[in-house]
Amino acid sequence: MESGPPGGSGPAEPGPRLRGWRGADAAASASSLSRFGAEAGCRAPAVAAVLPAGGCGERMGVPTPKQFCPILERPLISYTLQALERVSWIKDIVVAVTRENMETMKGIIQRYQHKRISLVEAGVTRHRSIFNGLKVLAEDQPNCRLSKPEVVIIHDAVRPFVEEDVLLKVVTAAQEHGASGAIRPLVSTVISPSADSCLDHSLERARHRASEMPQAFLFDVIYEAYQQCSDYDLEFGTECLHLALKYSHIKAKLVEGSPDLWKVTYKRDLYAAESIIKERISQQVCIIMDTKEDEEHVGRCLEEMLKTELNVHFLDYESVPFGQKMEKVMQIREFAKEAKKRNILLSGLLIYFPQEEQKLRESLRQGATIIAALIKERNSGLIGQLLVA
Amino acid sequence: MESGPPGGSGPAEPGPRLRGWRGADAAASASSLSRFGAEAGCRAPAVAAVLPAGGCGERMGVPTPKQFCPILERPLISYTLQALERVSWIKDIVVAVTRENMETMKGIIQRYQHKRISLVEAGVTRHRSIFNGLKVLAEDQPNCRLSKPEVVIIHDAVRPFVEEDVLLKVVTAAQEHGASGAIRPLVSTVISPSADSCLDHSLERARHRASEMPQAFLFDVIYEAYQQCSDYDLEFGTECLHLALKYSHIKAKLVEGSPDLWKVTYKRDLYAAESIIKERISQQVCIIMDTKEDEEHVGRCLEEMLKTELNVHFLDYESVPFGQKMEKVMQIREFAKEAKKRNILLSGLLIYFPQEEQKLRESLRQGATIIAALIKERNSGLIGQLLVA
Repeated sequence: MESGPPGGSGPAEPGPRLRGWRGADAAASASSLSRFGAEAGCRAPAVAAVLPAGGCGERMGVPTPKQFCPILERPLISYTLQALERVSWIKDIVVAVTRENMETMKGIIQRYQHKRISLVEAGVTRHRSIFNGLKVLAEDQPNCRLSKPEVVIIHDAVRPFVEEDVLLKVVTAAQEHGASGAIRPLVSTVISPSADSCLDHSLERARHRASEMPQAFLFDVIYEAYQQCSDYDLEFGTECLHLALKYSHIKAKLVEGSPDLWKVTYKRDLYAAESIIKERISQQVCIIMDTKEDEEHVGRCLEEMLKTELNVHFLDYESVPFGQKMEKVMQIREFAKEAKKRNILLSGLLIYFPQEEQKLRESLRQGATIIAALIKERNSGLIGQLLVA
Repeated sequence: MESGPPGGSGPAEPGPRLRGWRGADAAASASSLSRFGAEAGCRAPAVAAVLPAGGCGERMGVPTPKQFCPILERPLISYTLQALERVSWIKDIVVAVTRENMETMKGIIQRYQHKRISLVEAGVTRHRSIFNGLKVLAEDQPNCRLSKPEVVIIHDAVRPFVEEDVLLKVVTAAQEHGASGAIRPLVSTVISPSADSCLDHSLERARHRASEMPQAFLFDVIYEAYQQCSDYDLEFGTECLHLALKYSHIKAKLVEGSPDLWKVTYKRDLYAAESIIKERISQQVCIIMDTKEDEEHVGRCLEEMLKTELNVHFLDYESVPFGQKMEKVMQIREFAKEAKKRNILLSGLLIYFPQEEQKLRESLRQGATIIAALIKERNSGLIGQLLVA
């Protein structure tokens, strides 16, 4: 990597991109069409996704709708779109956003270079937004590149950690059963209150599940259900599986999802999402040595100390060409500013380097603590500093 | 504050202690007995609390039981105990822990100087642990300072953010109704699966609630319920309100709780708890100036910039007696090590100080970013560093 500006085409990847996503790397995605055949005995269907993103986030206690809340400077919905885009067999992603947020959403799509996205206007409720999304997929409109899919995935904009694995499961189950949805065990007992806010009865936790997202449907099943459903359903309902049951008489197949499918609802969920994203971002350390003869020993010690604390991948520390740029603090800062454009957070670390083995190890232990802190927090406010161990 | 060691009595407050807890400060706690009279028309009852803490945390995906997982170097359960201890009218806190964790728990009580705690051995299930806790409160054992309370609170070790407010509500409701519990709206729709993992029916979300903790009971109501309940209840049940209904025929009063009552269940919940604790820890900035004449202007600029990002309380920056200790980097590091013992994270920040107003503001803006990063992350790995703005 050179320290020059990234060129006229603008920053290639502003904000963090997640790598090493379980089960969703490039190779898995490339082979996924064939996985339909292998895993489910089904041919690969045409699949689209609808993302209702019209919510106002009142439960979050912040003015920004939660799907637009920044996590490491990037809006939450962009992570969710990225998770869906990585799945090559999802042909179209329809996002329903309110008129007020339409320009914001267009800006996000442009900035993070999202592909295969179509925008529709959200309705005033979740069901109305989904229905709007389904309508544009149903209609073969002129000047519209969308065509009717066989299977449609419905997902939430505020569930950014969806994996290809569970998407594949709900889609294949929907092909077979007509409808499918991810479920999770209940964390709390569910109770039914009486009119005077007293306990009427409690539900047996083991016999019930939380209905989560993603869900998938044969397109005709869910579209017909929406066409039939009442205003009351559209205003007060929230559960698509219920509509498929009530109006299309389809009993959805339920698929066990991972804990990461949870919905970002409260402010604490934003904190959790930020920590998960930090943990998943590629963690690489590059060590540059001053004295050639010690680099092997010192580098290996540091690597070994860090590996007990962090899942860090070490770049080779033997020959790094940009060492001479690091001579002065101000140079580190300038260099860090450039690296930040490529989403690399760069800091300098000066390790005191005594000959005595025990003192050296103390010094390296301190260095490892500092490196671990920088990697864990991943705060861009600390780039370009020269830290001392 | 002096830089000397904190004396022979050991560190007074190792690990973070939370201040500014909503509705739970010293003043509120001192007046809380009288609040019983004012708010509920009841006399103050004798109150004890039982905390089942025998869980193994299998959902967390980490080997340490979740109640013992460290958050900012302090075990989760210690925060919960602290939250209960702050409430002066809770006379005894009985914690049920497994035999394997008994010594760990004793160590935590000693290290964080918890008061009013009694330990009992946990049972193999949650209900059995609670029952064990109730038994020691029921019996007037010789050599036991515990006596039977009028009202008993049951809370979870893994809900550290419980406020005095909700504790008062469930206790007064239990006095009146015999039983009471905190509830929250459901985040997901609850569904009932059929035997073949298909949707049987979904429950109307608005008609149901999640049963959370704390709960409170007239002691005799819940103790008699436990004495009557079946082995099946003790093995597979989880809901104390259900036992009170089934065996004591008491319909518990349900009390709306805050979102912060949620149960730390998954690893993401630990992340969320850590961020909440960081946010709540007293955030104070102390500014030490080099040139006397500029401190007013520069200090106010910095304060103003930081206040837009953080809820920071500024110490007076005009006369700070330990400025001369900061002359060299190594002195900051030694000083930071001492400050850390009192749970103060100390860093140096050198702000470039040009005469030109715009450049000064740029420099201060950079300084504010660094300060905000250090306060937000609160990572002790970064103490004692001299950062440059």
